[in-house]
Amino acid sequence: MDYQTYFRSELDHLREQGNYRVFADLERERGNFPNADNHISNAVRKVTIWCSNDYLGMGQHPTVLNAMHDAIDRVGAGAGGTRNISGTTHHHVLLERELADLHGKESALLFTSGYVSNWAALGTLAAKIPNCLVISDSLNHASMIEGIRHSKAERKIWKHNDLADLERLLAEQPLDRPKLIAFESVYSMDGDIAPIREICDLADKYNAMTYLDEVHAVGMYGPRGGGIAEREGLMDRLTVIEGTLGKAFGVMGGYIAASRDLVDFVRSFASGFIFTTALPPAVAAGACAAIKHLKTSQTERDSQQAKVAEVRARLDAAGIPHIENPSHIIPVMVGDPVKCKWISDVLMDRYGIYIQPINYPTVPKGTERLRITPSPVHSDADIDHLIDALGELWAQCQSAQMPMAAQ
Amino acid sequence: MDYQTYFRSELDHLREQGNYRVFADLERERGNFPNADNHISNAVRKVTIWCSNDYLGMGQHPTVLNAMHDAIDRVGAGAGGTRNISGTTHHHVLLERELADLHGKESALLFTSGYVSNWAALGTLAAKIPNCLVISDSLNHASMIEGIRHSKAERKIWKHNDLADLERLLAEQPLDRPKLIAFESVYSMDGDIAPIREICDLADKYNAMTYLDEVHAVGMYGPRGGGIAEREGLMDRLTVIEGTLGKAFGVMGGYIAASRDLVDFVRSFASGFIFTTALPPAVAAGACAAIKHLKTSQTERDSQQAKVAEVRARLDAAGIPHIENPSHIIPVMVGDPVKCKWISDVLMDRYGIYIQPINYPTVPKGTERLRITPSPVHSDADIDHLIDALGELWAQCQSAQMPMAAQ
Repeated sequence: MDYQTYFRSELDHLREQGNYRVFADLERERGNFPNADNHISNAVRKVTIWCSNDYLGMGQHPTVLNAMHDAIDRVGAGAGGTRNISGTTHHHVLLERELADLHGKESALLFTSGYVSNWAALGTLAAKIPNCLVISDSLNHASMIEGIRHSKAERKIWKHNDLADLERLLAEQPLDRPKLIAFESVYSMDGDIAPIREICDLADKYNAMTYLDEVHAVGMYGPRGGGIAEREGLMDRLTVIEGTLGKAFGVMGGYIAASRDLVDFVRSFASGFIFTTALPPAVAAGACAAIKHLKTSQTERDSQQAKVAEVRARLDAAGIPHIENPSHIIPVMVGDPVKCKWISDVLMDRYGIYIQPINYPTVPKGTERLRITPSPVHSDADIDHLIDALGELWAQCQSAQMPMAAQ
Repeated sequence: MDYQTYFRSELDHLREQGNYRVFADLERERGNFPNADNHISNAVRKVTIWCSNDYLGMGQHPTVLNAMHDAIDRVGAGAGGTRNISGTTHHHVLLERELADLHGKESALLFTSGYVSNWAALGTLAAKIPNCLVISDSLNHASMIEGIRHSKAERKIWKHNDLADLERLLAEQPLDRPKLIAFESVYSMDGDIAPIREICDLADKYNAMTYLDEVHAVGMYGPRGGGIAEREGLMDRLTVIEGTLGKAFGVMGGYIAASRDLVDFVRSFASGFIFTTALPPAVAAGACAAIKHLKTSQTERDSQQAKVAEVRARLDAAGIPHIENPSHIIPVMVGDPVKCKWISDVLMDRYGIYIQPINYPTVPKGTERLRITPSPVHSDADIDHLIDALGELWAQCQSAQMPMAAQ
């Protein structure tokens, strides 16, 4: 085989399908987010970011930045080892306590990313628990799917958020067989929310564990930012709550919170936890500061929800179709990878608005979209400009016979 | 099943075997590494770290810390998204250029950790290339093994560093079948080094790709810190060089360097790259500063090698057995998990010396060891104290009929 020819032909195929990804080279300006510089060859262009997962702007919050500066000044850059071999620092220990407290659990465990936390925790639980059956929501994130695959445990997929289908799968199993129900609270791309209470009821009835991914909810929902499960008063009913430090908490990393023994079990057996360098202490310190801040400050959550409501109302008034959902995520559906990229390119080039086209494999083919995430740091002028630009583009697409899929 | 009872019994089993891990809760003092505070309950004890992978002390280097401070001041904390969805920052772009240059390759790709880079890159290459056979060294790191497993490609294990065994496996395959030879340069736990040139010769002869993990070598070997392959003048003969930013470069993250098309292929298809938040810009900036520094400064490499030679000579003079190898890693063999932990505990409690016991699953059962990593930041007094402490303990073990395995 000629390896280079193979790689090139696979990349050409992606390009032909409109699925080849070009990354925008961004440089934020501290304190001025969502505005940023976009580096293009040797030029620099000013843009407003409308697709960040730094949902609350905590990645720019002085409390977070000061905590990072302070940690670097006190202890230096990296952790210098795996958690077991000299890489556990006091910042990790304090952060894990903060996370356990956030979710009302006995214990928490840090991973280098949300992806790794799902992959390693689900992979370890499902692989090690004898005869474990994993029952996985059909729209679960890639990291959960890979973890479940990795475990080689038997898995069954339940129709997205469909309680009857979940119960059908649970009921056909012996009551004493170990079962793990894996699902998310806020689904990233459609922004819909799982019926957590009813899933917990079924888990109790059929003696199953529950594993809830709250990465798109922590910091943003619940009186202390504990997520949808906190808002609904359900945290104590979940076996494992998984979250991220890289979205609303503004930094990087992932974690699970659960009983002391479950956490210790994952800590002791998960390859993706054991054999990797720990997060830099400054990253842990920054995340810890963000969590503490959002435990008591409601300002960011209120402001985000107000901005989301305003953008939705303005889109409706302008006749731009978007998926209705009860979360902070606004998916404007396009339904074609080439058109989606074209709109995104024009928004960037002509209007200085950055909304990355979301295409396969992040969403199924045919459901390509612009995913808009309003945040407290978007100004009224930013919103005006966004709606004006989208309005002009939509009119142009319609007059040019480029109909948009919508729902 | 009673899940909690199951977790507890598995943990009890680990404890009975002596394989239950207790993490030392450390707090370095910037500028005073390898000295650190060890938090124990509510007390704090001064210790000297002798088991860090911050091999050159770059995690404390002012150039690295200033670069991190500067990035936080300029752009804030986190990247705010995946590389594709608003998370590519100019710091990532600059770092990938620096890494490509370090290894003399067309292109480089960042991952959130060395673990993820191996898992995602090997997993993607082996899974996607039709009928790919992976030929893997028997002592490859867990992250490589998991990546290869993940790919579901056929794999064959060659005896560690055994060229005849490798050739036997290659020769029995058709010449045009895609093949990937996966190996490391410096093996972390024994400190031995692969015959890279001869492996490349075999790869050429049998039309195989080569994938070399240099995580324990980058920064430390070669005139610009490009690793063992740079030192041997072999970088251009390797298909993929994988490295870490979390050991000699002092921060966190992993990468591959290879041809433009191969890197673009992994970038486009690797789940563990696509679906995860990018490294914080400050982490990228710190790593970039460390790499640039070590491209021109030989001081740290010379000093490390001198310290390693001195510790080895002093261990020999004191009659303390250690594995001879051509690298910077000094494994003092104990061969029993309980004894290994006992020695480590006494070193910590009585002498303020921190050397984590290395036990299963990091090394095979029966080969438990103390793994010592001297660095430029260890003083002559640190070395005196280490040798005195180990000498006293060794005498005590021998008089108490606690023989040590050695080789």
